[in-house]
Amino acid sequence: MIVIGELINTSRDEVEPAVKERDADFIQKLAKEQEEAGADYIDVNCGTLIKEEPEALEWLVTTVQEVIDVPLCIDSPNPEALKRGLEAHEGKALVNSITAEGDRYDEILPMIQEHDAAVVALVMDDSGMPSDADDRIRVASELIDNLRADGIALDDIYVDPIIQPIGTDGEMGLHILNAIDEITNKYEGVHITCGLSNISHGLPKRQLLNQAYLVLAMSKGLDSAIMDPLDEKIMSLATASDTLLGNDTYCANYIKAAKSDKLTI
Amino acid sequence: MIVIGELINTSRDEVEPAVKERDADFIQKLAKEQEEAGADYIDVNCGTLIKEEPEALEWLVTTVQEVIDVPLCIDSPNPEALKRGLEAHEGKALVNSITAEGDRYDEILPMIQEHDAAVVALVMDDSGMPSDADDRIRVASELIDNLRADGIALDDIYVDPIIQPIGTDGEMGLHILNAIDEITNKYEGVHITCGLSNISHGLPKRQLLNQAYLVLAMSKGLDSAIMDPLDEKIMSLATASDTLLGNDTYCANYIKAAKSDKLTI
Repeated sequence: MIVIGELINTSRDEVEPAVKERDADFIQKLAKEQEEAGADYIDVNCGTLIKEEPEALEWLVTTVQEVIDVPLCIDSPNPEALKRGLEAHEGKALVNSITAEGDRYDEILPMIQEHDAAVVALVMDDSGMPSDADDRIRVASELIDNLRADGIALDDIYVDPIIQPIGTDGEMGLHILNAIDEITNKYEGVHITCGLSNISHGLPKRQLLNQAYLVLAMSKGLDSAIMDPLDEKIMSLATASDTLLGNDTYCANYIKAAKSDKLTI
Repeated sequence: MIVIGELINTSRDEVEPAVKERDADFIQKLAKEQEEAGADYIDVNCGTLIKEEPEALEWLVTTVQEVIDVPLCIDSPNPEALKRGLEAHEGKALVNSITAEGDRYDEILPMIQEHDAAVVALVMDDSGMPSDADDRIRVASELIDNLRADGIALDDIYVDPIIQPIGTDGEMGLHILNAIDEITNKYEGVHITCGLSNISHGLPKRQLLNQAYLVLAMSKGLDSAIMDPLDEKIMSLATASDTLLGNDTYCANYIKAAKSDKLTI
């Protein structure tokens, strides 16, 4: 399971002022905590600071990379902000995100090529957000085919099927699971990621739905998620699921995690 | 999710003496607690009392049915014990279990027919325990085809793919998931159940593996399990998974469970 730590995001109340005030200590602590908890990427997102987003994202990338060893997921729909973030990043970044929207694809692609970055491919095109499984499969296929034709390796593509709340459509969970299943069968080796917590928006006991949905999606081939690595219960379920899905020879990772007291029942 | 409460089993230290001494209060309390926690069936198993199993099982059925409204899962490999249990049972029981072993099939089938019972079909034949997914699919197909030819409705068949420990074979979890997927695709409407906790035998933090495996198996079509209904966390994950899999219109069950404070994060 490739965990993209989601906590450095200015949509969170405590993060926005820290980024505005360039509080490096606060941000670096949040980055280190996520790395220590097992995050494979640290997501940086300051999309709420619309006017100063490019400068703030560049500052975030530099500040976070000073104290951690894992790469960053540079998260913005704004091409200028992505450009500044990528230029500041050392090593192979993950760009979040490209879409099949004509303009956005054409603007983002050269940056990925230039910086040899991996990329999150959101299943959205000029017709807007996807509704059902077929929409997701169609746009994902278009994106994967185009990215590969443009020289991006399958292993560098993280398809995001766009999780929408189950509270507004009871079939939404199934649509996305079916899409993940079909995309991973069609393109063996592609990564699937998601913004997990969107599934539970508007419902009570959200963490419970997030936990169950992570495991359900992993059964269909999801191998990454943008999530909270400090949530011990969901991280434990991810570790257990990886073991149960045959990704942990001799259950070695699981037993090691148990011995280090990292598993929460 | 059809929950078969597993706690009345003489392989549990506190249950064996209670059954030996015919302690009705202890057994009835354990039955009521499971019913109140949401069990759809109460399993009764006294297989460790080999010599007196038929009498003890008959006593268990009568004693438990005095205080609960849900039907029982009468659980024994011993045809004489099953017979006594079924004769004592009022209403439609679930017999646990029939197999594809020649003698056992021929002995158990007439009881199921006579009592119009539902039946757990263990994927075992005269060649013994199954090893991989193909074994499980082959024996399940034989059992389902034979049971239907013998007049048992698909809705009365609960296929048990026989869960074996992941600790002894890291691919075991996958074999069983693949088998469940194929069996439910081939026989739409058949039930799948399992003795869930076998998956974690010999490993630390067993409940965590049981929790994750229940959700993984539900994603493939498992709709029942023999499990501990007093384990609030696993019951909560089952409720959340049912909602996420589209089995809960308007998330009504989930919201009701949250309001009744029945969901554990």
